[in-house]
Amino acid sequence: MKPYSSLKSILAEFFPLHRTLVSDDQDKTLEIIGSYMPDSSNYTIETYAPLKQVWTWKVPERYAVHEAYLEIEGGECIVDFKDNPLHIVSYSLPVDKVVSWNELEPHLYFNEKRPHTVPWVFKYYERDWGFCLPKTVFDRLPRDKKYRVVIKSEFITDPEQGFRVATALIHPEGGPNPEAGELLLQAHTCHPMQANDDGAGVVSTIELARRLAEKRAPAGSMSVRFWFGPETIGTIAWLAHNENLIPNLRGGIFMEMTGNKNKLAFHHTRQHTHLLDRITKYVLNGQGDHDERDFAAAPANDERVINGPGVNVPCISLNRWPYDEYHTTDDNLDIIYEDMLFGAADAAEEIIRIYSSNYVPKRTFRGPVFLSGHGLWVDWRDNWLLNRAIEKIMMRFEGEHSVFDIAEQVGLDYLTVRDYVEKFRAKGLVTPLPIPSEAQTA
Amino acid sequence: MKPYSSLKSILAEFFPLHRTLVSDDQDKTLEIIGSYMPDSSNYTIETYAPLKQVWTWKVPERYAVHEAYLEIEGGECIVDFKDNPLHIVSYSLPVDKVVSWNELEPHLYFNEKRPHTVPWVFKYYERDWGFCLPKTVFDRLPRDKKYRVVIKSEFITDPEQGFRVATALIHPEGGPNPEAGELLLQAHTCHPMQANDDGAGVVSTIELARRLAEKRAPAGSMSVRFWFGPETIGTIAWLAHNENLIPNLRGGIFMEMTGNKNKLAFHHTRQHTHLLDRITKYVLNGQGDHDERDFAAAPANDERVINGPGVNVPCISLNRWPYDEYHTTDDNLDIIYEDMLFGAADAAEEIIRIYSSNYVPKRTFRGPVFLSGHGLWVDWRDNWLLNRAIEKIMMRFEGEHSVFDIAEQVGLDYLTVRDYVEKFRAKGLVTPLPIPSEAQTA
Amino acid sequence: MKPYSSLKSILAEFFPLHRTLVSDDQDKTLEIIGSYMPDSSNYTIETYAPLKQVWTWKVPERYAVHEAYLEIEGGECIVDFKDNPLHIVSYSLPVDKVVSWNELEPHLYFNEKRPHTVPWVFKYYERDWGFCLPKTVFDRLPRDKKYRVVIKSEFITDPEQGFRVATALIHPEGGPNPEAGELLLQAHTCHPMQANDDGAGVVSTIELARRLAEKRAPAGSMSVRFWFGPETIGTIAWLAHNENLIPNLRGGIFMEMTGNKNKLAFHHTRQHTHLLDRITKYVLNGQGDHDERDFAAAPANDERVINGPGVNVPCISLNRWPYDEYHTTDDNLDIIYEDMLFGAADAAEEIIRIYSSNYVPKRTFRGPVFLSGHGLWVDWRDNWLLNRAIEKIMMRFEGEHSVFDIAEQVGLDYLTVRDYVEKFRAKGLVTPLPIPSEAQTA
Repeated sequence: MKPYSSLKSILAEFFPLHRTLVSDDQDKTLEIIGSYMPDSSNYTIETYAPLKQVWTWKVPERYAVHEAYLEIEGGECIVDFKDNPLHIVSYSLPVDKVVSWNELEPHLYFNEKRPHTVPWVFKYYERDWGFCLPKTVFDRLPRDKKYRVVIKSEFITDPEQGFRVATALIHPEGGPNPEAGELLLQAHTCHPMQANDDGAGVVSTIELARRLAEKRAPAGSMSVRFWFGPETIGTIAWLAHNENLIPNLRGGIFMEMTGNKNKLAFHHTRQHTHLLDRITKYVLNGQGDHDERDFAAAPANDERVINGPGVNVPCISLNRWPYDEYHTTDDNLDIIYEDMLFGAADAAEEIIRIYSSNYVPKRTFRGPVFLSGHGLWVDWRDNWLLNRAIEKIMMRFEGEHSVFDIAEQVGLDYLTVRDYVEKFRAKGLVTPLPIPSEAQTA
Repeated sequence: MKPYSSLKSILAEFFPLHRTLVSDDQDKTLEIIGSYMPDSSNYTIETYAPLKQVWTWKVPERYAVHEAYLEIEGGECIVDFKDNPLHIVSYSLPVDKVVSWNELEPHLYFNEKRPHTVPWVFKYYERDWGFCLPKTVFDRLPRDKKYRVVIKSEFITDPEQGFRVATALIHPEGGPNPEAGELLLQAHTCHPMQANDDGAGVVSTIELARRLAEKRAPAGSMSVRFWFGPETIGTIAWLAHNENLIPNLRGGIFMEMTGNKNKLAFHHTRQHTHLLDRITKYVLNGQGDHDERDFAAAPANDERVINGPGVNVPCISLNRWPYDEYHTTDDNLDIIYEDMLFGAADAAEEIIRIYSSNYVPKRTFRGPVFLSGHGLWVDWRDNWLLNRAIEKIMMRFEGEHSVFDIAEQVGLDYLTVRDYVEKFRAKGLVTPLPIPSEAQTA
Repeated sequence: MKPYSSLKSILAEFFPLHRTLVSDDQDKTLEIIGSYMPDSSNYTIETYAPLKQVWTWKVPERYAVHEAYLEIEGGECIVDFKDNPLHIVSYSLPVDKVVSWNELEPHLYFNEKRPHTVPWVFKYYERDWGFCLPKTVFDRLPRDKKYRVVIKSEFITDPEQGFRVATALIHPEGGPNPEAGELLLQAHTCHPMQANDDGAGVVSTIELARRLAEKRAPAGSMSVRFWFGPETIGTIAWLAHNENLIPNLRGGIFMEMTGNKNKLAFHHTRQHTHLLDRITKYVLNGQGDHDERDFAAAPANDERVINGPGVNVPCISLNRWPYDEYHTTDDNLDIIYEDMLFGAADAAEEIIRIYSSNYVPKRTFRGPVFLSGHGLWVDWRDNWLLNRAIEKIMMRFEGEHSVFDIAEQVGLDYLTVRDYVEKFRAKGLVTPLPIPSEAQTA
């Protein structure tokens, strides 16, 4: 596990790479991430054969660009892939010909609102070829000239050079508790030469992994699984190859765009009022101003897969969207702030610490417990609020309410209530039931 | 199937008849209705033996009136059944005697609010005899004279001359889908010489049958069963003889008083928030001003049977009640408007077309569908609203929401959503589940 | 069964006794109560061996005080147990020594707000010794003197002299209906020489028992079980010895502090919206101004056991709390009012008469009933409101609503609706289902 001076410094390492669905630079990025992940987290890269059917999708081919440029025939070079991978439409088909302005124009992309930037455009599935350039450059191109268009791209289907995603796993103290299941934490690696979307989410997630490895969740908690890869098809391909993991997943957090200067927002789970939603609100309410959006609101992402049909694991998204530089060359290291990256990690950490350690206490006793006889009395001089809440807590051990629910119902903070319930557990007066799975198996 | 120039012309054919629970004119009415029903609808008349136990009731006897009049002894004839069947209380016992004013008065009925009309009075079960006449006539009758009262009525129990109801059945394209079940449409034939109550409902229903036979519901939809007969005991006797049909019934619409000039009203089902209620509201909201009433609110009718104890099929009522001429000789062809008759048929048709073609799509896929790969992508330039709704629609194929529910939830119209869901169905990505039955079997 | 001139006269008999968890005076109190209970109620005293484990508790020992006083060494006697049992902390350990003021002071208890009274203090489980005295006396005690403290107390564990509670049982007309179960009525006997808390509840409960024995509930109703004993541990010890009774319990009423001049208050069940809550509100709304509090609000009592974990029988509390004299020597006969004692009995009686006679009617018929054919028609001239409600009542015989629910839903009073439903029952058109048990068996 390599040390680091700042999260931004990790981001700087892989920021300029040509990271796309499947590419050599994407492989390098997964290697860089792995070098910073905790040694104990069993960081592993999986490879899937291109064109293999994964649910209703197909695994995409590796994309290699050997050379690509647009020039005025016999004259000025307009854009060159060497300068910036955004200059070509991602997954452009190969092309090498001379075309008129009228033939060229439908293949040129720019951003009206940010005329000085190169936009990011992708055509993964309805393939074509295209170049992206600043509006200012587009405007000054001569309409009466011929243009040479060259894209020497290759779609590689060799299974050894397949589609890649990486996972890691951090257990609670004392090792995994299979009954408790896992919480999934995801960030994306696939946007070429962009910083906030979603290199920022990646480095916030690395920070989280290191904190959770450093200070493990209490024994019996959920394990936390980390996932890095390309969006949508990445998660679909991974789940289709690992369907057995789905029933273990008790929740998910998708982290993206965590580095720009904006307040944090969370997207609800599809369930909307799930425990994970309530814990997220509780945590964010404690951390100041934030936004709250419906499930799969823009920017929708892999929560659509994790919390989608046939999977249905409650999944929130955390991000600092919107920001004006989105999907352009302005989404670079200049808009990334260390305190923003850490702030998102702070919020996610608290959500994870509560959600993963939460459980449903089920009583083994009948009648109100003889508190003083079991050392469970809390003197009102020591903790007035807890003293007032004892009866209400004790009435809620029916296996219907989690510790967090109980804390919410009696108006106390989670850790106070968890500590008190743990005393009942230590006396054998309650047994812990896991947070129920909402996952679908088909 | 006879042609017709107007719905009112059909109504005029059977309006003046002595239609009561069981009578020769009632038989004639069922024949007239049958002559206008679509040939393909298998119009059938069933006959039940009088006095047979049907659930907690008994099938009534056929009622024949050979002669009936009230006259001042040796003088003026006051009222004669020949002039209007309303002049005697329906199901009056036979009588033939001379009585004083004091003996006569308790047997005379008039309408205070409409003194020039003859009211309709019936004593089907607590039998007695009586005459109905205008208040203006009642007032001028001499109190010091004797009166001759003659009712030569007969109660016939011959099983061959039993109690009659008629049904017809229209299937969707391609024939019946037993899983989808049936929707029941009812109107009454039993109010003697009255037009709006409920000859109007009868002719609106004939119009509906012809439209549904002309343009069938899409394949796989519910069949639509039509029913004509006397109110309450008619439906009870029919169901008691056809209990096997009850589990197939998925909904009911009772049509009455559809011809007067008033806005349309609907009565909720007993379930109150059933799919049928929501579809009815959706349709009526689209057709302008209307009234909305609780289940079995006045004028309560056979929804009390269809949606009542031991049957429980969600049933709405559609009518243009209230109207001042109700249950008097003023309820005649003068108050019937063709556009009102058609307007009620329009509303019912739209409700039926949605309700009968609705189903619950259940996904066969996992993960968000690879839309472009399956030709399911909707370009936002073609249909912006549908494009925005794709994700939400695709998330609702869990077998919990019907197509109508989904349309309601995403704020699009039913047909747009049904067409789009049908594309998933054509690809094998969803299978249709029928609208669940709420019928009781005991 | 002894006659009585007033409830207060019964209270006066046992008021001055040294009634505590287990004591000879407590035994005497149970004997006095028994002498007033109906002969037919099978009044029975049970005895449990001290120190026996009862759920998470232990049965307490019998407490005997042979002599106890506090005096200035060689001088004035400050307080003496002979004068009032409140002068020592209940369950004080034996002590006999001379102590300085500094040693004595932590063992002295007074009431700041009522400086002229002796407060009631108990240390049943964290045992110590102590004296209770007026603040006015405390203030004038010399700080420089030595004090003699004498408590000759004894903790007796002889099983024959064990812990005692008493129960009685009153059946409906015709004897018990095991399906209907029992309603439990409780009052406390354990506060030494205090009147309102809870001798008042005891005598209101005796009155109730006599009324219910005098005029039995209708055949088929719940039986009513009466219970007298010390609070909390009394009910726990009793249930732990009679676990088989728990599933029969359909509801509970705890009566206390019914004699002071204040409006009546009820505490909700833990279920909060249970039938018993709704019946209680219905009754109290009909009896004028009253208070309403959450389950286990102050003064919480044995509803915490009856309606608590592992028992869960819906239980309300009825009381006239708060009152200033609470837990002091001012809680004596001077603050007890006969009309208050009776008023509480009136309210409880009406709740019991409704709750115990209530049942869930389940239809045996299909279709709307042929009312006139079965003598079930209600003429609107006889009872307009019931006539209007017939249809709604008949639609609610699905086995989902109790008679009280139906009465509430149609806006009629309970007895009117029960009488009408009984007519359907007499015709075999409905069968009665018991009020479901919410009791837990572990």
